[in-house]
Amino acid sequence: MTRIKVSNAPSVRRLPSYLHIIRASRSSGDFYISGTVIAQELNLEPIQVRKDLAITGIVGKPKKGYPVEALIVAIERYLGWDKPTNAVVMGAGNLGSALMGYPEFHQNGLRIVAAFDENPDKIGKTIHGVPVHPVAELERLLPGLEARTAILTVPSDHAQICADRLVKAGINAMWNFTNQKLKLPPEVVAQREDLSSGFAMLSVMAQLRDGRNA
Amino acid sequence: MTRIKVSNAPSVRRLPSYLHIIRASRSSGDFYISGTVIAQELNLEPIQVRKDLAITGIVGKPKKGYPVEALIVAIERYLGWDKPTNAVVMGAGNLGSALMGYPEFHQNGLRIVAAFDENPDKIGKTIHGVPVHPVAELERLLPGLEARTAILTVPSDHAQICADRLVKAGINAMWNFTNQKLKLPPEVVAQREDLSSGFAMLSVMAQLRDGRNA
Repeated sequence: MTRIKVSNAPSVRRLPSYLHIIRASRSSGDFYISGTVIAQELNLEPIQVRKDLAITGIVGKPKKGYPVEALIVAIERYLGWDKPTNAVVMGAGNLGSALMGYPEFHQNGLRIVAAFDENPDKIGKTIHGVPVHPVAELERLLPGLEARTAILTVPSDHAQICADRLVKAGINAMWNFTNQKLKLPPEVVAQREDLSSGFAMLSVMAQLRDGRNA
Repeated sequence: MTRIKVSNAPSVRRLPSYLHIIRASRSSGDFYISGTVIAQELNLEPIQVRKDLAITGIVGKPKKGYPVEALIVAIERYLGWDKPTNAVVMGAGNLGSALMGYPEFHQNGLRIVAAFDENPDKIGKTIHGVPVHPVAELERLLPGLEARTAILTVPSDHAQICADRLVKAGINAMWNFTNQKLKLPPEVVAQREDLSSGFAMLSVMAQLRDGRNA
């Protein structure tokens, strides 16, 4: 099995923002939403929005737009967010704690069911309702948690050893917030999050505004 | 002035990962690095890496690859990371604190010089070496901090009011970690960070692996 590649990654990355807007539209009682409205909200071209949404199989109707309810269902299904995903957080530091309390995750089916840390001050506490267990208990507790997704927020030099242990214990999806590129078996999917990417975008926009890189 | 758009956003988003790898190569004493090596590290196609790096103006040499030092300089200059960027963090909660301690930012010229919060337990403390000031002091302190970039990690329902105040006080670049789409004057560049994007990628990879969305 070769490592999974997402051919339409930029579109996939935008779907959560669309979903957020379309859900708000549903809350306002709308039955239809136009691609142009979504595009304006996100400062995108309408053609881009239509292309992105087409991957979910839903097509808008001329003049009316997209049926709100069907579009939400289609995006959630496409992303696999129609089923809950149980996840554990490795490392209950600031970033791990922030992720445990990130409100949008709940709506997207991501349930953080436990955290693991080595710090005795944290073990036994709950953070945003999530219990913190000792790392030593990982293998014993994981099966009962029914979690196959792990969120890695350990220090980068602990990342590989932690990942190896998670894989052995049954984790098959790894959301990696460390700096470390992980060696993983091909059946384990992994997404590395680099917060510097967003800063790169902001920096390039500032350069363009100021007439550099023109 | 119309709002700035980055036409090659996916390439820009990948540059920090390239930079990370190329810097590591420099630390190992290499003078040249091949695009294929970078591609393998990041699980990308070599042609993609070559296209992305071309935007910085540096072209690889056949057989040898890219000159490491020149490539680092070119990427840093393209991103504007050759000059330091002073930034303030609004909201010294878990996410704000995590960003203050994010090691990669320093290497990328992002200097978080102060945080602002309303919580009396946090005011007057330092978090990862960053002093936390009362929000009431924002307008008075900002000029002396020489910061025109703000990182927003306040609760989403405070985001717009906070952004308005920042803009009035002289901020012209806003890195927005809240859920809120901000109304900003066109000269203020803004990047909204949606952590659900990465979860969408991970979810779609898991779907592909499991034979859904095929």
